Amino acid sequence: MIQHSVMFNLNHSPDSREEQAFFDAARELATIPGVDQFSCLRQVSPKNPFTFGLSMVFASQARYDHYNQHPLHKAFIEKYWRHAVSEFMEIDFERY
Amino acid sequence: MIQHSVMFNLNHSPDSREEQAFFDAARELATIPGVDQFSCLRQVSPKNPFTFGLSMVFASQARYDHYNQHPLHKAFIEKYWRHAVSEFMEIDFERY
Repeated sequence: MIQHSVMFNLNHSPDSREEQAFFDAARELATIPGVDQFSCLRQVSPKNPFTFGLSMVFASQARYDHYNQHPLHKAFIEKYWRHAVSEFMEIDFERY
Repeated sequence: MIQHSVMFNLNHSPDSREEQAFFDAARELATIPGVDQFSCLRQVSPKNPFTFGLSMVFASQARYDHYNQHPLHKAFIEKYWRHAVSEFMEIDFERY
């Protein structure tokens, strides 16, 4: 089981229509087979430099790979992520 | 609902007895009332600089505050965290 998350900042103005469109598009990623427990997240820690997050769980590395290669994921990166995200950090956790 | 996590690196040698003792002590934090879905985590992303993680969920800020002030949490910070953790980043997420 892999808990995949990404923390990021957006170029868009806070609470803008563009920000909303970004998260509307991100939520479509939850429909990719193998994506479990999908969440769009907002940072509330004053100690963390990243404002937003996406989080999901994959039962296996094979499902994670399938997600990465899926046309919906690739289209999201191309149409939304590349233009909107100013900096980010990915996290892939397995149980210790 | 707040998803609280912390990513960190340890001064201990990988898979050492000290590392094991650190996580054994960390698991006791799960017994603090209000701590849900407690997990000890290991990074598998080559793109993330933090090797380990702890993650938990609080139903409210009040429960989070209670955890922060709890003697078990304070003792863990004092006896284990301070000596063992070389760098860390906290993450507090709410649903977007």
